Amino acid sequence: MVSAIVITIGDEILIGQTLDTNTGWISQELNKIGVWVKKRIAVGDIWDDIWKVLDDASQEADIIIMTGGLGPTADDITKPLLCKYFDSGWKTDKQTLTHIHFLFKHVFNKEATERNLKQAEVPEVCEVLFNEKGTAPGMWFDKNGKSFVSLPGVPHEMKHMVSKIMLPKIQSAFRMSVIIHQTLVTYGIGESYLADHIQQWEENLPEHIKIAYLPNYGMVRLRLSTKGDDKNKLEVEIEKKFAELKELVKEWLVIDEDMTIQETVGKLLKERKQTVGTAESCTGGFIAHLLTMNAGASSNFKGTVVSYDNQVKTDLLGVEKTLIDSLGAVSEDVVIQMIQGALKELKTDYAIATSGIMGPDGGSENKPVGTVWIAVGNKDHIVTKEFHFRFDRMRNIQQTSYTALNMLRKFINNYVESAL
Amino acid sequence: MVSAIVITIGDEILIGQTLDTNTGWISQELNKIGVWVKKRIAVGDIWDDIWKVLDDASQEADIIIMTGGLGPTADDITKPLLCKYFDSGWKTDKQTLTHIHFLFKHVFNKEATERNLKQAEVPEVCEVLFNEKGTAPGMWFDKNGKSFVSLPGVPHEMKHMVSKIMLPKIQSAFRMSVIIHQTLVTYGIGESYLADHIQQWEENLPEHIKIAYLPNYGMVRLRLSTKGDDKNKLEVEIEKKFAELKELVKEWLVIDEDMTIQETVGKLLKERKQTVGTAESCTGGFIAHLLTMNAGASSNFKGTVVSYDNQVKTDLLGVEKTLIDSLGAVSEDVVIQMIQGALKELKTDYAIATSGIMGPDGGSENKPVGTVWIAVGNKDHIVTKEFHFRFDRMRNIQQTSYTALNMLRKFINNYVESAL
Repeated sequence: MVSAIVITIGDEILIGQTLDTNTGWISQELNKIGVWVKKRIAVGDIWDDIWKVLDDASQEADIIIMTGGLGPTADDITKPLLCKYFDSGWKTDKQTLTHIHFLFKHVFNKEATERNLKQAEVPEVCEVLFNEKGTAPGMWFDKNGKSFVSLPGVPHEMKHMVSKIMLPKIQSAFRMSVIIHQTLVTYGIGESYLADHIQQWEENLPEHIKIAYLPNYGMVRLRLSTKGDDKNKLEVEIEKKFAELKELVKEWLVIDEDMTIQETVGKLLKERKQTVGTAESCTGGFIAHLLTMNAGASSNFKGTVVSYDNQVKTDLLGVEKTLIDSLGAVSEDVVIQMIQGALKELKTDYAIATSGIMGPDGGSENKPVGTVWIAVGNKDHIVTKEFHFRFDRMRNIQQTSYTALNMLRKFINNYVESAL
Repeated sequence: MVSAIVITIGDEILIGQTLDTNTGWISQELNKIGVWVKKRIAVGDIWDDIWKVLDDASQEADIIIMTGGLGPTADDITKPLLCKYFDSGWKTDKQTLTHIHFLFKHVFNKEATERNLKQAEVPEVCEVLFNEKGTAPGMWFDKNGKSFVSLPGVPHEMKHMVSKIMLPKIQSAFRMSVIIHQTLVTYGIGESYLADHIQQWEENLPEHIKIAYLPNYGMVRLRLSTKGDDKNKLEVEIEKKFAELKELVKEWLVIDEDMTIQETVGKLLKERKQTVGTAESCTGGFIAHLLTMNAGASSNFKGTVVSYDNQVKTDLLGVEKTLIDSLGAVSEDVVIQMIQGALKELKTDYAIATSGIMGPDGGSENKPVGTVWIAVGNKDHIVTKEFHFRFDRMRNIQQTSYTALNMLRKFINNYVESAL
């Protein structure tokens, strides 16, 4: 099986000041075409450390992919290192130089500096991977039967280069084996209970089919994986096992694809040509954000009132002030009136409402931090539920949002009674 | 200098199905107490690979920290491996066992299964790090002068254990050197121009002070770092250089701390006892979400109307329908009326409004994907600006949101004219 190690270079990633999303994405893409990612490594801007990582990685894998360390500023040492590592001189890549001139003249409307133009200089021995989206070219090196690829660190530049150039080049340079994953999403059962529930079935899985439990925000994704050479045979086998698994967990099954809950809800609404709006207090617009991350969201999402302040609850959603004064904003009656207000004002088929205390402050003895009321409904019916989460602020916001979206999913599917 | 390598174990992280935020966070915390993080590694659930990573890491660093691979399900192999790696038998940790019983009885309201109780079993030779927040205990091992720490993978459990137990234990077990970072945030100047602007100053930096350029969403953070033994001397030196740097970049300076733009805006509003609300079309609630991530946001953030649908713009924000029909929703006049509507309905001192085309579809020749109008203002004055971003949907949403927050920051600071 062709194997790869993915390396990200840069102090800011290494010490966690910048979140690395690049190597995870690259690994997913490699995985899809059947490259086994063996390891991912983050290393700092230190010459000897990078050199050693390259040496070690080339002992362990067929393809070594680097990202980052190619920007225009002086803390970048990757390119000189690669030049030395591959014992090469320098050359200027004409296509890149032309592209830099073009970008500065027509897109950035600025004069390109020496520093910018220098980005067209690359080690002589490399094959340039043209960066259509930016100024830093990618590079491909071959040495002792191993391939080394250097990619820019800016995510949208890197992604374009990987999809358009690197993956096809890997597919033609190596003989690929097949990796197949099948993922389903469950909600409402913990990881350990799920494991007990399917234990016997799991014990009878053939050696080459693996199962992974991926818990996240009250959901557990189950992923079946297999790899080998005979694509058709593997597909038939994994389909059969996947169908068995779906049947086993049907009580908690959200969807039989690797899809987020917001994509699942968006898909459901689109199929039914229906719309949703949200009335959010404690989630502060995060549910609206999740729903509008979906491309084409405007066909099924109309809008939101974030009523962080109680006056906004009364002014825009028509929640009775006396209700808030007597019961508090975090109460069942208030989220019911928020649903009614949202349906009326936003003119949607469904609405979601949230009100709670996300922390770190604002809790009381009766309503500690983590207390949340969620409601979902339409003009005929409203379902409410109280929750007690016990995480930090950000995680409480996320958990409330994902839970609310799952309640809506169940509601739409007519599991009104059991919307949890 | 005491060094560490941070390892995350698990196929789901390795192949990018789950985003790893743990190792970045751990690295930041280690960095703060003066531990030099040399490398971060993600490795799959494969016995030999994990074994080799531990062997290699212990050749290169003083402390080897692992996270993940301790959950209750069968795909976890970390604990048996550690038991074998340290040539140990098993023991049951009484405190953990009691805690598991307590959690299931009083918090989860379920019966603990065999699988759950088994989490209290640990290698005999380890020192248990008690997991106050969950069921999987942490473990500390010493071997050949190196320390190995195994942490649970659930972020809030891991973080609590690191802060409360692991970091103090490292500080007492090792002689620490000092690492100091000073970070400032700039907006409105590209990385390469910034580098040219401060080149001479940068060339005269002493050997032991490093500068890093961290570009992100139109901002560039500049970070000065130094390390050594004499804390006072280092502090004086870096303060001096940091003051010089601030002066050099003052034209583009957002804030002289490592603070997000939403924290900066929240801080500014809190100091002035003023409030903000948002009227969001294309950003779909993301600006509201950013502002409500700040703890204590209710003191300065009142609410939002997400008017994704044009009817919501007219019904809730009072934007004239004829205006939308003639100019389109993505236009200067519409964002001005959205500001006016938001100020009136949400009763805030300031408002932010956005309208644009985030992609991938919905563009036209006149208004291609990435076209955005942003407005910020108060009752006396409104500033507007048109932008043309050219990224993918998610990045356009983020870029629009961060840009809008920075426009508001400038507006509040009375740079009304130059709010960009």
